Amino acid sequence: MNRQWLYAKQPVGKIGPDTFEWRETAIPQPRDGEALVRTRMLSLDPANRAWMMGRTYRDALEPGQVMSGFTIGEVVESKAPGLAMGDIVEGDWGWQDYASLPARRLIKRTTKAPIELLIGPLSVTGLTAYFGLLEVGQPKPGDTVLVSAAAGAVGSMVGQIAKLSGCRVIGTAGGQDKCDWLVKELGFDAAVDYKAGGVFRPLRAAAPDGIDVYFDNTGGPVLDAALSLMNLRGRIVCCGNVSQYDVEKPAPGPMGVPGLVVVKRLRLEGFIVTDFYDRRAEAEARLARWIADGKIKAELDIFDGLERAPEALIGLFEGNNRGKRAVRV
Amino acid sequence: MNRQWLYAKQPVGKIGPDTFEWRETAIPQPRDGEALVRTRMLSLDPANRAWMMGRTYRDALEPGQVMSGFTIGEVVESKAPGLAMGDIVEGDWGWQDYASLPARRLIKRTTKAPIELLIGPLSVTGLTAYFGLLEVGQPKPGDTVLVSAAAGAVGSMVGQIAKLSGCRVIGTAGGQDKCDWLVKELGFDAAVDYKAGGVFRPLRAAAPDGIDVYFDNTGGPVLDAALSLMNLRGRIVCCGNVSQYDVEKPAPGPMGVPGLVVVKRLRLEGFIVTDFYDRRAEAEARLARWIADGKIKAELDIFDGLERAPEALIGLFEGNNRGKRAVRV
Repeated sequence: MNRQWLYAKQPVGKIGPDTFEWRETAIPQPRDGEALVRTRMLSLDPANRAWMMGRTYRDALEPGQVMSGFTIGEVVESKAPGLAMGDIVEGDWGWQDYASLPARRLIKRTTKAPIELLIGPLSVTGLTAYFGLLEVGQPKPGDTVLVSAAAGAVGSMVGQIAKLSGCRVIGTAGGQDKCDWLVKELGFDAAVDYKAGGVFRPLRAAAPDGIDVYFDNTGGPVLDAALSLMNLRGRIVCCGNVSQYDVEKPAPGPMGVPGLVVVKRLRLEGFIVTDFYDRRAEAEARLARWIADGKIKAELDIFDGLERAPEALIGLFEGNNRGKRAVRV
Repeated sequence: MNRQWLYAKQPVGKIGPDTFEWRETAIPQPRDGEALVRTRMLSLDPANRAWMMGRTYRDALEPGQVMSGFTIGEVVESKAPGLAMGDIVEGDWGWQDYASLPARRLIKRTTKAPIELLIGPLSVTGLTAYFGLLEVGQPKPGDTVLVSAAAGAVGSMVGQIAKLSGCRVIGTAGGQDKCDWLVKELGFDAAVDYKAGGVFRPLRAAAPDGIDVYFDNTGGPVLDAALSLMNLRGRIVCCGNVSQYDVEKPAPGPMGVPGLVVVKRLRLEGFIVTDFYDRRAEAEARLARWIADGKIKAELDIFDGLERAPEALIGLFEGNNRGKRAVRV
């Protein structure tokens, strides 16, 4: 039996349980060139929500299809060259127990690490933090780095990599608990609770020398405040816009664009992690070593059971996760 | 007698005649290390208006001071090393007949060209177009380049340099006359009259393959439309925000930031021409040669007489200039 969650209908405003529909169907048989994989982990990412709203860097989700999401699984039967039973593979076959896929849609994972790390810190989210911060943000020792959604899967890694790079690091997160965790457990220099009131004043207090690099996961008010506090020639890494994904009516754009961009010679740059996948092996090896050496804490937020996937994704937009949220299937 | 225009008071909304105040005072005597210069040309630039609203890349204008602006003049008396009577110098001593300045605030001009070219096409506006397009925008042959305020001093040069770079060039301007001039006289491939209705549809029609480089002089609706039409990894050169300088209430920021910046991996980057002044000689020589060879038309829009400076600046925000607006003193 192949259990699946379908993407049932396009949400208006917040996603909810009726965005998804449960289905049980037959396990697909692999054709020549395909492998049958058994899902082990599903990654929950803010991008899943963005895919519902139209074409992005991938096709929009269409109601009726299996809900999309990054996945890790194990090959249980192979008619694909280079793949054998027991291989651990990564892909985006979505919210289901089984899928049959051609080899080109599967990445064989060889890094030795628990599968819970392979789905996030050593995959999309860790690599997003690594390449986005280091390649797009180009922090130098002594820089002040701000990251929004800092308690999330990407943000928590960004902050820690920035600390390893010799930077002063400030994070924004929702709630005092998360802020305390950032400072006490992850070594952030300061954290600002965006739910406690305005963000501009506390950020200005936390960044008396201004901000050199802002890693933007959220857009919205933190981006507005950051634009005002950026130093000359500051870099804004545009990674996500999570404050606007799960709303009916998006907020207006940031007032500081383009005025402050000109005056302060800022650079705003978007990226998608797969743009850097030719250098994935190098980055994955470094992240694995930092985690093994305890230099980076890879916080995990695991739900058990495919049936809990909708609940896990809905909660992501209520900000109730800390670190990498995934479902163990 | 030294005739001056003072900056009289901060405007609310549009600037008008009462933004300025006429004064006649004594000619200042140069001290040791200074040269006395006689103004020959005043440059009128949208930035003059931006300086009234607060600190930018320079201090804000303060009511009571001589109105600021880029200037070209002739040394009439020198107690400054390296400067002699008759030298042509550039600076920003503002709207007055005479000023005494230390040598470090004067750039001696040696390019042989009419003084009307030295104030714009071979100075701030030409260099802004040159460095902004080529260094920040990085156009490649075959790229589609969009420039806003294309009939203005910077935009008209940007478009022509983009043509020399092998690009397809589209400009926006206010009014059919200017649009015709861009296409028929300056060699633009297409021009869109932003006053004739919405800009998105005509821009989409003019750029069937999308936009690779957008040179943004205006912000506002053209920036919004450009963000929607940019190709993957497109570059937006943030040069100015003229649609928002002379208004009481600035418009909201662009909706496509940061969402489309992420999805399309765009880069928005601000710059100030003086950042590139270590390479000014090279750029000035190329621009002078292109103009002399007729490869670039340097359109001039000259007002005669210092007394007309306010009128010339006010008109800039009504869009009634074509090419480089300056006052011959």
